[in-house]
Amino acid sequence: MDLAKMIRDVPDFPKKGIIFKDITTLIKDPEGFREAVDILADHYTGQEIDLVAAVEARGYIFGAPIAYKLGAGFIAVRKAGKLPAETVVEEYELEYGTDSVEMHRDAIEPGQKILIVDDLIATGGSAAATARLVETLGGEVVGIAFLIELGFLHGVEKLKEYDVFTVIEY
Amino acid sequence: MDLAKMIRDVPDFPKKGIIFKDITTLIKDPEGFREAVDILADHYTGQEIDLVAAVEARGYIFGAPIAYKLGAGFIAVRKAGKLPAETVVEEYELEYGTDSVEMHRDAIEPGQKILIVDDLIATGGSAAATARLVETLGGEVVGIAFLIELGFLHGVEKLKEYDVFTVIEY
Repeated sequence: MDLAKMIRDVPDFPKKGIIFKDITTLIKDPEGFREAVDILADHYTGQEIDLVAAVEARGYIFGAPIAYKLGAGFIAVRKAGKLPAETVVEEYELEYGTDSVEMHRDAIEPGQKILIVDDLIATGGSAAATARLVETLGGEVVGIAFLIELGFLHGVEKLKEYDVFTVIEY
Repeated sequence: MDLAKMIRDVPDFPKKGIIFKDITTLIKDPEGFREAVDILADHYTGQEIDLVAAVEARGYIFGAPIAYKLGAGFIAVRKAGKLPAETVVEEYELEYGTDSVEMHRDAIEPGQKILIVDDLIATGGSAAATARLVETLGGEVVGIAFLIELGFLHGVEKLKEYDVFTVIEY
């Protein structure tokens, strides 16, 4: 199954000149969705993974079924202000300005092994910030997985110290 | 396993007087997460379900693994302005003002059978709006499932015409 062909290019979204990689056409196909989850999850079969951490909202679409399949728990990494209890926060740079990601302070116990999952790596800022959150709480990042890599943005270079796995590269 | 005991009450979030039902303490527990997904998914085993539709972001945490387990596709219902291609939109009322949910116009083929999933039903506005989106596109709502029901808000009454399943009632 050619998963790359099931992803739609939408030109000029979210702004002019950007070609958006739209996964909705892939995930609405039961076999495409299943295969994308399986390829990502099966890469980690046999490794000890306590928790899968994913960044809202699209990261949850793959991260939650991967956690389910691997028998791990799930950490909902959120944008600022959405988690109700005490949090840790990490900022990361955007093209213009900054954004931030948050985790509950009690999301991870020291020594737990964490797999980070997102649908797509562009500049790698949110994944790197998520890895810092994991380490702040004493967790160990055992891997970072993306369905899609925008290779021309070189985001993986920001994650050099980690074991990164990507399925589809553009 | 008492799933209700694994959900944390956070008082005064998002504003004073509201007790927030925090699922992060449930989903970080591998067995709690697995059991929550299994109870919801197993309720529909044997029913024909083409697609699971869930509302961002917490709805994806249960909706995506349920779709995976049932062998269905997944529809990412989003808040306004986040989907890249042509959409259909439905507004719903909040305590003050309105909010809206969107689906891609090509998310559903006429006659497809759709299960709607969310983590929690409060007033039922976003679930009812999602059901209208499904019907606008010619889909059939075969069920609406929530892990948590805030019974005192009577949201299920807004969904009277549908088959609603909830696991934990407060």
